[in-house]
Amino acid sequence: MKKIYLDYAASTPVDKKVLEEMLPFFSEKIGNASSMHSFGQESAEAVEKARKILIDFFGAKEKELIFTSGATESNNIAIKGTVRAYYSVLENKEKKPHIITTAFEHSCVLKTCQKLEKEGLIELSIVTPDSEGIVSPKDIEKLIQKNTILVSVMYVNNEIGTVQPISEIGKIIKEARIKNKESKENYPLLHTDATQAVNYCDCNVEKLGVDMMSMSAHKIYGPKGVGALYIRQGVKMFGIQDGGEQEFGRRAGTLNTPGIVGLGKAVELLAKDKDRDAKKVKVLRDYLINRVLKEIPRVRLNGSKEKRAPHNANFSFQDVEGESLLLFLDMEGIAVSTGSACSSGSLSPSHVLLSIGLKPEQAHGSLRVSLGKHTTKKEIDIFITKLKKIVEKIRKISGNILGDYYANSRNIQHVTRNH
Amino acid sequence: MKKIYLDYAASTPVDKKVLEEMLPFFSEKIGNASSMHSFGQESAEAVEKARKILIDFFGAKEKELIFTSGATESNNIAIKGTVRAYYSVLENKEKKPHIITTAFEHSCVLKTCQKLEKEGLIELSIVTPDSEGIVSPKDIEKLIQKNTILVSVMYVNNEIGTVQPISEIGKIIKEARIKNKESKENYPLLHTDATQAVNYCDCNVEKLGVDMMSMSAHKIYGPKGVGALYIRQGVKMFGIQDGGEQEFGRRAGTLNTPGIVGLGKAVELLAKDKDRDAKKVKVLRDYLINRVLKEIPRVRLNGSKEKRAPHNANFSFQDVEGESLLLFLDMEGIAVSTGSACSSGSLSPSHVLLSIGLKPEQAHGSLRVSLGKHTTKKEIDIFITKLKKIVEKIRKISGNILGDYYANSRNIQHVTRNH
Repeated sequence: MKKIYLDYAASTPVDKKVLEEMLPFFSEKIGNASSMHSFGQESAEAVEKARKILIDFFGAKEKELIFTSGATESNNIAIKGTVRAYYSVLENKEKKPHIITTAFEHSCVLKTCQKLEKEGLIELSIVTPDSEGIVSPKDIEKLIQKNTILVSVMYVNNEIGTVQPISEIGKIIKEARIKNKESKENYPLLHTDATQAVNYCDCNVEKLGVDMMSMSAHKIYGPKGVGALYIRQGVKMFGIQDGGEQEFGRRAGTLNTPGIVGLGKAVELLAKDKDRDAKKVKVLRDYLINRVLKEIPRVRLNGSKEKRAPHNANFSFQDVEGESLLLFLDMEGIAVSTGSACSSGSLSPSHVLLSIGLKPEQAHGSLRVSLGKHTTKKEIDIFITKLKKIVEKIRKISGNILGDYYANSRNIQHVTRNH
Repeated sequence: MKKIYLDYAASTPVDKKVLEEMLPFFSEKIGNASSMHSFGQESAEAVEKARKILIDFFGAKEKELIFTSGATESNNIAIKGTVRAYYSVLENKEKKPHIITTAFEHSCVLKTCQKLEKEGLIELSIVTPDSEGIVSPKDIEKLIQKNTILVSVMYVNNEIGTVQPISEIGKIIKEARIKNKESKENYPLLHTDATQAVNYCDCNVEKLGVDMMSMSAHKIYGPKGVGALYIRQGVKMFGIQDGGEQEFGRRAGTLNTPGIVGLGKAVELLAKDKDRDAKKVKVLRDYLINRVLKEIPRVRLNGSKEKRAPHNANFSFQDVEGESLLLFLDMEGIAVSTGSACSSGSLSPSHVLLSIGLKPEQAHGSLRVSLGKHTTKKEIDIFITKLKKIVEKIRKISGNILGDYYANSRNIQHVTRNH
């Protein structure tokens, strides 16, 4: 059975050209990029070549981009590093700063903010998106206070794929900053988690008006374990990992040369093929959405159909659990994701779907299908055929049998969803 | 010219067998280890297989080991995570905790502690090693206070290779813990940075009596960008990276499956060949030390000759700058490291060498030569021949010429040393 992978939003295969570029840096070009000798310089040059590719792609300047271990780290640095830098100013010690974020951020932004609030380090405001899965810039504007140091809004939601109006928010932040002249540090800053956006949306930092932007290599056909954080020049931002002076003193630790080289190559390939791939993926995704909505009864598309990244579809099937759908599809060799966040065996519904107004039972019945550059029309056709049968089958099964099924499925080891 | 790599303490080549094991996880076995479908489970199983290898190697229990992006992150988690967990207890909010570390730790331990002290979060005591580069357990014992929550002492020093009496310190900490019965959290905890030790020393956590232990893959013929942290069961330790529930909630972020698989294989190979490689390396290293001390005038070995990991040699050459030695050797195709920590162009002497009592000019004249499993006697012979000539040549150059030389060499881009 040939497997069908429709979970590109969770992770993508490393492009063969990317892997090829990485290979010499494992066993031959072995220098630590911080070493002074020629082995080290060779690694350092490869790192700087990759940095240049990313800087050009994002329209950034030299020294405005640091490499990290992935988007989770980038997001943690952006938020905690900003708070840490704020408190490093003596006169700020007694004044609690304020952060604004949204209710449907990835957990590495939302939980980071919530933990900082719990630890008494920040005041936190959380904006709820509308029923289409879009955050209103006006809602953010209303929440900006004198002590607001950071606004963090994701560019493309990881579960429902909706595209947020970052450049509009960017304009609002700029105005707020002008009004807030007394702040030497140019607060509030704007951060966006662009992890799901880099493949398909314009990530030019000037157009977006962002001060910080996070991304991950493994979502764009690069390797796992490496990412980047754009930090605008002049932004007061400390790292979270102290030690050596790597990455302009903002991220200590031996540079992951093969990973960084891979990220550079992935962005280089993306810069070349972005428009072509986006168009191809969008055509297939629209075909998928239209057929599912037409051919399967009692199904809804979660999130705006228009303001949506081209690779994402997210459905709720009435009277069907997303997790059982996922498992039945998996038995047929098809990999998709569920909107329900299964944490340590509990079946709590997705915070993203609840935030756009879904009832818990609707959130439970959701399925994320995410396409990639290797997805074919044939794969979509096979998927829809199987999906139709499985949805029908599950709807026929009575509550009791379903109950038994879930009791067993809870033993399956799985920790987090929807990366 | 065939290059000679004698900087294994900075980074090692990835073993061919390690790379082989990693390869399928880039472009074929692509699942996110947190995904429920078979792609995800395949990755999760590979991660757990690697975890089992490490757990067995370190004599640890299930769930006592988390994967990180490297030793710098592991050390940061161990220290900051302990402090963060301490402050999570309401009754601790107003009581500043105390940490003990040593003056010659890697900067990712020392600076982390110093920054926490500066931020007003901890009291810090720093123990100075003796002139042989060994920390005295008695000195640590004397510094333990009622509020000491953590003692962090490296296992093998990264610059001079001296082996610290961790198991003796472990016994002292255990006694201190018994005396300190009122602490529910079993403070003080003992952490060791074993990054330079894993290749050659016994890293059984029970024998050592450590509560936390850090390590990095790229020092043991595994890939860069991945490491691990052992955390004893029951240790109250929060992460520094919030988000998903990966790694038992202690380290959020998509798992770096290929990297983790590589680390697992590297440890598997190490478990098999450790004694053989250690013996071979020690014979060559002793040969190197003896010849250098005998054949080159006015040279000293830094750090104990006996209590020293088998791969490390560190010399100070009178009237010779380590940096110029390094650069001349590099021109001859030989990669070594200098003890002088060159941070952003400044030539401040190594904090490690100063801590064992060297004068700044002695510290400046130091050179670290670190061997690995691929090092041959022929390489050592070539190295010594060239080293003798270069030392002689540099000593002949007058102060003025040397002055000009350094003025130029400062422009060379290099950031941190001695990883």
